[in-house]
Amino acid sequence: MVGEKMIKYPNGSKTTFNNQSNQQTTSRRGVALEDDINITNAYYLDLDIAVVHKKPVPIQIVDVKYPTRNKAEITRAYYVTPSTTDYNGVYKGRALDFEAKQTNSKTSFPFSSIHDHQIQHLKKVIIQDGIAFVLIRFIAFNETYYVCAKKLIPLYYKTRRSLPYKWFKENAQLIPFSLTPPVDYIKIIDQLYFEREWLYERAKK
Amino acid sequence: MVGEKMIKYPNGSKTTFNNQSNQQTTSRRGVALEDDINITNAYYLDLDIAVVHKKPVPIQIVDVKYPTRNKAEITRAYYVTPSTTDYNGVYKGRALDFEAKQTNSKTSFPFSSIHDHQIQHLKKVIIQDGIAFVLIRFIAFNETYYVCAKKLIPLYYKTRRSLPYKWFKENAQLIPFSLTPPVDYIKIIDQLYFEREWLYERAKK
Repeated sequence: MVGEKMIKYPNGSKTTFNNQSNQQTTSRRGVALEDDINITNAYYLDLDIAVVHKKPVPIQIVDVKYPTRNKAEITRAYYVTPSTTDYNGVYKGRALDFEAKQTNSKTSFPFSSIHDHQIQHLKKVIIQDGIAFVLIRFIAFNETYYVCAKKLIPLYYKTRRSLPYKWFKENAQLIPFSLTPPVDYIKIIDQLYFEREWLYERAKK
Repeated sequence: MVGEKMIKYPNGSKTTFNNQSNQQTTSRRGVALEDDINITNAYYLDLDIAVVHKKPVPIQIVDVKYPTRNKAEITRAYYVTPSTTDYNGVYKGRALDFEAKQTNSKTSFPFSSIHDHQIQHLKKVIIQDGIAFVLIRFIAFNETYYVCAKKLIPLYYKTRRSLPYKWFKENAQLIPFSLTPPVDYIKIIDQLYFEREWLYERAKK
């Protein structure tokens, strides 16, 4: 596993961290997709390809102290369930909105990792004609899929349990391997929305 | 002042709160625009007009305790300067991105209340052809203006100090008075982007 990671992401510090212990490898894996998306978004931002940011984690602040006049220290707060997806932004004028999830399973993606209010939010974005999707990584295969929310949502309501790995092979877009950026999802959006749709629109005229 | 507010926003609880003391009226005023925008966004969301959310305040978490297995309590955290604007979302497929500010001044809007990184972010959104703007309320006149970021940013870099009230009268869009929703900024976006632009696009063909 570590060997595979070394080939795909030749980052010295990451590899060292991964090698320290098994537990750390697992915890490192837990945030790997998020890290890759953050790197990708920073790359898009730098090169003026797209503007996409991860939303801050919503927190309910209960107590704040002011040790000095200009410094506020939050001394009691709680995590709040987010009412939207984690990422949104803009690409060629269009609104992007997505969630990112990864699974250790080799056979299926469990729907339990997506919250119902995230699905509700993606539905709202679809109604507004935004580009709504979910990035799903199968860690075991080091594969990240772009899944249109329009395809995912009906199945979420139908099965409520999980989507077999095979489904992704047939219905989702595998994001091609790339070093910079690590998860080049804009490439898929170009194919789905800015090549096909434009051709289609032109053909209608 | 309170009388004016009562006419425009006949909300019992708000008025009672405002009447309690002068200090509370001021502090209440401090969040009035934000509250009005939140009500407006909830209205847009309910009626499937637009999907716009306020981003959570970014916080750096330092210490977390787990009093019980499923409950996390944040015991030390700090506010972090946000790298984006406060609001974004989607309307008719287009990405919206904006900041909201209010001032007690009757003569000008001080640029000091907008952070440089928020201006940087709005620039990036403009490059991506998103709909970027700032909602600015002059509390004394109970007027809220829609200001195109494209118009505001060059002046921000030119003067760095403030924009006279007169400038808004001539260069910004006064958001018409409305009870539901209180700050109907989508109306301005319709005028600016979905009526004029479409007519223009059609005229070209």
